[in-house]
Amino acid sequence: MPRSVAAHRQAVVELLSGVLSKRDSIALPLLQALGTALAEDVHAPLSLPPFANSQMDGFAVRSADIPDGGAELRVAAPVPAGATPAALKPGYAAPIMTGAMMPEGADAVVPIEKATPDTFPDPAAVEAVVELPPVAPGTFVRDSGSDIAKGALALAAGTRMGPAQLGLLAALGMTTVNVRRPCRVLLITTGDEVVEPGEDLSVGKIFDSNGTLLEASMLQAGLDVVRTGISSDHPSTLLSVIRQYTGAAESGVDLILTTGGVSKGAYEVVRQAMADQPVEFLPVAMQPGGPQGLGTFDGVPFLGFPGNPVSCLVSFEMFLRPALSHVLGTPAPRPMLKAPLAESLTSPEGKHQVRRGTVDGKGTVRMEGGPGSHLVHAMARANALVQIPSDVTELAEGDEVEVWML
Amino acid sequence: MPRSVAAHRQAVVELLSGVLSKRDSIALPLLQALGTALAEDVHAPLSLPPFANSQMDGFAVRSADIPDGGAELRVAAPVPAGATPAALKPGYAAPIMTGAMMPEGADAVVPIEKATPDTFPDPAAVEAVVELPPVAPGTFVRDSGSDIAKGALALAAGTRMGPAQLGLLAALGMTTVNVRRPCRVLLITTGDEVVEPGEDLSVGKIFDSNGTLLEASMLQAGLDVVRTGISSDHPSTLLSVIRQYTGAAESGVDLILTTGGVSKGAYEVVRQAMADQPVEFLPVAMQPGGPQGLGTFDGVPFLGFPGNPVSCLVSFEMFLRPALSHVLGTPAPRPMLKAPLAESLTSPEGKHQVRRGTVDGKGTVRMEGGPGSHLVHAMARANALVQIPSDVTELAEGDEVEVWML
Repeated sequence: MPRSVAAHRQAVVELLSGVLSKRDSIALPLLQALGTALAEDVHAPLSLPPFANSQMDGFAVRSADIPDGGAELRVAAPVPAGATPAALKPGYAAPIMTGAMMPEGADAVVPIEKATPDTFPDPAAVEAVVELPPVAPGTFVRDSGSDIAKGALALAAGTRMGPAQLGLLAALGMTTVNVRRPCRVLLITTGDEVVEPGEDLSVGKIFDSNGTLLEASMLQAGLDVVRTGISSDHPSTLLSVIRQYTGAAESGVDLILTTGGVSKGAYEVVRQAMADQPVEFLPVAMQPGGPQGLGTFDGVPFLGFPGNPVSCLVSFEMFLRPALSHVLGTPAPRPMLKAPLAESLTSPEGKHQVRRGTVDGKGTVRMEGGPGSHLVHAMARANALVQIPSDVTELAEGDEVEVWML
Repeated sequence: MPRSVAAHRQAVVELLSGVLSKRDSIALPLLQALGTALAEDVHAPLSLPPFANSQMDGFAVRSADIPDGGAELRVAAPVPAGATPAALKPGYAAPIMTGAMMPEGADAVVPIEKATPDTFPDPAAVEAVVELPPVAPGTFVRDSGSDIAKGALALAAGTRMGPAQLGLLAALGMTTVNVRRPCRVLLITTGDEVVEPGEDLSVGKIFDSNGTLLEASMLQAGLDVVRTGISSDHPSTLLSVIRQYTGAAESGVDLILTTGGVSKGAYEVVRQAMADQPVEFLPVAMQPGGPQGLGTFDGVPFLGFPGNPVSCLVSFEMFLRPALSHVLGTPAPRPMLKAPLAESLTSPEGKHQVRRGTVDGKGTVRMEGGPGSHLVHAMARANALVQIPSDVTELAEGDEVEVWML
């Protein structure tokens, strides 16, 4: 009985867990860490804001100086952002700019538009006064540590480093961050029928699109990809190609990924090459991408995807990408949403079908091409994967399906 | 009256349209083109599949050779993928592998599991026979051009280059692709109060997080970022910093982006520096990120974002990113979805509020921190922007809101 999609995804998670949980971390400059996952908790080395500051352009005051009816206060020296102001004397109001440090003694800010006059006096003016309404203590003051207090947990280990997370680390004064080293994948496409794009295409051959498709998918997911040339359908060639890269102790290959040669035909090079390794070749109840290989090769985790381009993309998105998100914390999972179908469709019983579709501006999803796993042009028009569970055989126009946005 | 979010976004689109529509293209190797947009239509230089091939492991037959009751056929030489098979003689069935070229004369494939025996004979066996059921012409044959015909439009100008699109170009034998040159942005953070992360933080100063936040956002969006040092609050300093980069004809700067100094306070360096330029400073009915600058500086498109980090992120996501998607075709728009609120909230009348939130596994969204634009730690916990339209002032727990997934 074929394995379910969920069970195979879990098997990929388990395959990766052992290796990746032991991974070393690497210190990277903030911007180079974009898309990686934090190796360890980061605690705030300072409070944010580091000091109480004004939330508005206005007047910093001692709130007790202004009774219910308002008061006329003398205007102190203005406080621009970045300056260290003198303490505010009783009976004075200090012009203060957004973000500027609150003077000692001041406990509230009256916005400039509530002052009379509602413009700042010329800094050269002597003895200027301003009339201000009453204000509660703390008004328009951003207290020190109100975003985060010194020593508090800023980001937890495993957090994905996006613009906001890197911006926080910069605000905390950091220039580098310890992140989990990206997973290194050795990618090998196999098949006597495939030739590198740009070479001559003789009769019976096709250009290799799996290599480009999967390398691009993995780069987008933040992986470190080592790509070999195309391997022939001779098991000994494939074995020597793999060992050329994984043989060295310092190769750092975390995962070997092959395409093709995993089904039940007569010339299945990956199956043959893995005969002496603890690798299982099994059917997963999924269409496309049913035949899958999983195990270890010379102790290195191994996945064997089928050879059709659509099967490769679906295998990556359904198994490897979610497993990496789960184990490493990166990449981000694909956004999932429910969308009504623009058309009816059928699906084989007992197989989880993954169709390629386009979610339009109104949120409706229509199919791009049929279910065939060779339809790479149709796949290139799609912006989503449409998930049809294994127990569903027919869907009507308007029925809701789960889609994963690519 | 403040400008609406939609009107300001449209103004940014118009600002970028003139420059970007005239952009030169650049030929890049496929993988380097990931995330760019196609400069021109690509037509298929060959058909896909290039030749009729088998969709299954099985026997290629002349369907007319098998009557309703089935037939015993002689087994021809096997056809592996990548081989050029001999023509199929009448009365013969050729073992054929998935993806292998159909022999001349064969018009259908019987899957191996429907054959008797259901395994392929040893290729060395002489005079082997196989019993096969009847099959309709075309069964399990992928016709030449059934995915795309030679000369047909493969990808239209403006298409974003993701893994599937690059995989299609590889399948078509291409190794490079003409794409629109990424937009080059000159990024300048301003403020006497900000210092570079890693430097000494004296009293009243804060570390610059806007530079990291925006550079990371723009790198993630596929832009080419040129970053200056922090500019002081002296307009002459800011002018000389900008002209140092944009003065050279070959600088290639498409857009100048500043942070800070755009509101109505007394020390608004960007406003002051742009006094002689056709730049408008205006309030947008949005919170945070209300004060915005837009125009041209020495003829180069200019945008001025406010100085708080949350305002910068919101300004980028609400204005610049969608405008680039619209004008350049890349980056992809943020996925938008409807999510029920985990809590009630209020929003100021007449302002489109953008809150930071987290969409959880059940699809519910809860707020991260309050509306304050200095809350960078809260922002770093969010995975979505929550959109509260300007005419909405109160929402209850369970009400649906539009969220943009970050």
